[in-house]
Amino acid sequence: MNSVTKTLEAPIIEAPAASLRRMTTLKALAFNCTLKAADKTSSTDKLLGEIAGAFRPHGVETEIVRVAAFDVLPGVTSEAEGPGDGWPALRAKIVASDILVMGTPIWLGQPSSVCKRVLERMDAFLGETDERGHMPSYGKVACVAVVGNEDGAHHVCAELFQALNDVGFTLAASGSTYWVGEAMQKTNYIDLQQSPEKTASTTKTLAATTAHLARLLKGNAYPNLS
Amino acid sequence: MNSVTKTLEAPIIEAPAASLRRMTTLKALAFNCTLKAADKTSSTDKLLGEIAGAFRPHGVETEIVRVAAFDVLPGVTSEAEGPGDGWPALRAKIVASDILVMGTPIWLGQPSSVCKRVLERMDAFLGETDERGHMPSYGKVACVAVVGNEDGAHHVCAELFQALNDVGFTLAASGSTYWVGEAMQKTNYIDLQQSPEKTASTTKTLAATTAHLARLLKGNAYPNLS
Amino acid sequence: MNSVTKTLEAPIIEAPAASLRRMTTLKALAFNCTLKAADKTSSTDKLLGEIAGAFRPHGVETEIVRVAAFDVLPGVTSEAEGPGDGWPALRAKIVASDILVMGTPIWLGQPSSVCKRVLERMDAFLGETDERGHMPSYGKVACVAVVGNEDGAHHVCAELFQALNDVGFTLAASGSTYWVGEAMQKTNYIDLQQSPEKTASTTKTLAATTAHLARLLKGNAYPNLS
Amino acid sequence: MNSVTKTLEAPIIEAPAASLRRMTTLKALAFNCTLKAADKTSSTDKLLGEIAGAFRPHGVETEIVRVAAFDVLPGVTSEAEGPGDGWPALRAKIVASDILVMGTPIWLGQPSSVCKRVLERMDAFLGETDERGHMPSYGKVACVAVVGNEDGAHHVCAELFQALNDVGFTLAASGSTYWVGEAMQKTNYIDLQQSPEKTASTTKTLAATTAHLARLLKGNAYPNLS
Repeated sequence: MNSVTKTLEAPIIEAPAASLRRMTTLKALAFNCTLKAADKTSSTDKLLGEIAGAFRPHGVETEIVRVAAFDVLPGVTSEAEGPGDGWPALRAKIVASDILVMGTPIWLGQPSSVCKRVLERMDAFLGETDERGHMPSYGKVACVAVVGNEDGAHHVCAELFQALNDVGFTLAASGSTYWVGEAMQKTNYIDLQQSPEKTASTTKTLAATTAHLARLLKGNAYPNLS
Repeated sequence: MNSVTKTLEAPIIEAPAASLRRMTTLKALAFNCTLKAADKTSSTDKLLGEIAGAFRPHGVETEIVRVAAFDVLPGVTSEAEGPGDGWPALRAKIVASDILVMGTPIWLGQPSSVCKRVLERMDAFLGETDERGHMPSYGKVACVAVVGNEDGAHHVCAELFQALNDVGFTLAASGSTYWVGEAMQKTNYIDLQQSPEKTASTTKTLAATTAHLARLLKGNAYPNLS
Repeated sequence: MNSVTKTLEAPIIEAPAASLRRMTTLKALAFNCTLKAADKTSSTDKLLGEIAGAFRPHGVETEIVRVAAFDVLPGVTSEAEGPGDGWPALRAKIVASDILVMGTPIWLGQPSSVCKRVLERMDAFLGETDERGHMPSYGKVACVAVVGNEDGAHHVCAELFQALNDVGFTLAASGSTYWVGEAMQKTNYIDLQQSPEKTASTTKTLAATTAHLARLLKGNAYPNLS
Repeated sequence: MNSVTKTLEAPIIEAPAASLRRMTTLKALAFNCTLKAADKTSSTDKLLGEIAGAFRPHGVETEIVRVAAFDVLPGVTSEAEGPGDGWPALRAKIVASDILVMGTPIWLGQPSSVCKRVLERMDAFLGETDERGHMPSYGKVACVAVVGNEDGAHHVCAELFQALNDVGFTLAASGSTYWVGEAMQKTNYIDLQQSPEKTASTTKTLAATTAHLARLLKGNAYPNLS
């Protein structure tokens, strides 16, 4: 009986906190794509913090990075596009992680320009396949966190799921979480007295499915494509 | 050593055709969401046929279904919305499959209304979680095939990835394939002398990643969420 | 002094209700693209009724049509696609109107399949230009009304604005109105005690700009394009 | 007979080049949202140049601006977000124009991050209404020009139409033009021997409808909304 059949016959992983803690720790990298400078509070940060908390019992350690604090220059390459380009440092963090969490606010119903810039720079992955035909992102799982005053979370997920999948990321079931308020209102997520139960429960689900899939793929890479 | 650690230590599956044929066969269901009645040729059918061919060496058998031949009524439930509603039969096919391939033409840069109707009916999955908190789609992998005369494939993928993920499907890396011609032209995929090499190679990659992920998830279900 | 310069020198139309009532009445056609049969109440109907009320002081009479009550068959032609196809009757109503209001609910963050089907059938306009090179929709102004439980209005507008503009409609500034509730909630617009002030004010603006532009274009057709 | 009825009875403007040259010249501002620095050739530039040429016989003079040459900082305000912020200068150009042409390349099927940043900064218009309740963009007509190697033009239009309309711009019928090549190919618009006839004809139509509508709105402002 070979290892492949073993995998196929493996019992369902119920993933109780106890056995998960025995597993290899996974690394999640969370990009906060707020437009705001690093010294300002951010609703996106609040949701990313909640994701980090939800990942912990699944054996995932999360690093949250404020993208606006890095000066990511316009372009579609992996190398520095000019002096001070912050992208190469951010790219190295992606490569070293098992999970990528894209966190973005909504502006005009769409992802932020900071978020778009990160996606554009990852376009380079398409040309960086290894000897197996794998992009640097192959085997990594991405998920999405969105906050806005009032509307746009589903569309932001659509834009991000497509772009992230195009550049090689895998997406676990229920791979997004979000909060938006009532139409045309101005409340920020960070100003809510407590996180709404629905968002909290969705965040918990995202953490469970994403961690599970990342662990599976880490142990069982995609086949050779070349 | 428990089964979880076994999975973690499993060697990378290189998935050569030989070992794959020894595996449990997976079932893929491919929905052709063309607007055309069942007796007319369809460019979407051509691409779905190519996907079926690409799945075979990975141990995946594909059933292609022309959705327009079923009378899917408007609604967001799993039960018949009226006499002759074709949805319950299509839903049963989804539940019995490991992989769902959504194939759609592009109209006005967007997925077809037939495709949209299928997505809407799957909205019911959100309320049909089992005792583990899993939707009927949990553990199944979806992928997307798009054909159009000229433009819109990426956006169709975005719409479908988001909707499919929302209703519980998992998405493998490189989970889409497509063909479109030059801007504002009228050539159909079905009229091409031969399938363009780029599309063929993308289809082959989709089949490899999707089959791999579906097999992994079949052997290792998402954790209990409730 | 010719008519063109007269138009250019015309004073700003302040459009008080008094002078507007003296104007030629315009016809607005509002499609309710709910998935529900005609005998069921609809949140979209409520918002369309409010638009009809907001149009009245601007000299616009509105007919609201429940699309699901017509059996619109799949296709991209203007003629009947089969026995009982409701499209030709709906198309005749569009041609007889000055303004088209597309009203749709949100499902999975996207427009309804009923709405998509209407757009697809209007794809035929692209091939129906007259001797001036004008589609049947040229000179007509479209606007969009969206209701949902929680999220998706901006994206629905994006999908509709693009498709409507592609098939020849003009869009006035602030050409949309909507209501959605807080993330992941289930309240329907129709169940609100009263219409939220923000939505009401947005609806009023939409009516003013759309009526103004439709009147201008009715008196001053787009130039000959052929 | 008042000026309003005069407008309503005005004959159809056939807009021959001769009479148009007698009209007040309109100003179009074209933003090139390429990711490339100002000294590099750009396919978007080529299409914007063709639009400028198509506008001329309609009495529209076009200024093309390379946005990447200005350092537009992240934010949603009209004022400088920091030292060297290029936005206030670009915003002044918008305010001084009758027509805004948004030109963008496609990356991952979506508008460029440079384009997104321009849209975000215009979000400020929503809070800058004058005593009539008009945003600074009211009465200005926007249109869209898109170039890409292979796919995404319709979606880019959808994103831009919705965002531009939200921040107060009006959209003429057929308000976009684009070029993309066959699926997954790498040809650039700038490398084509000559502009494809279909794109050229679409550009000509866009120029005619956009110029016509901008002239109408310049002579007949939207009504007082406050």
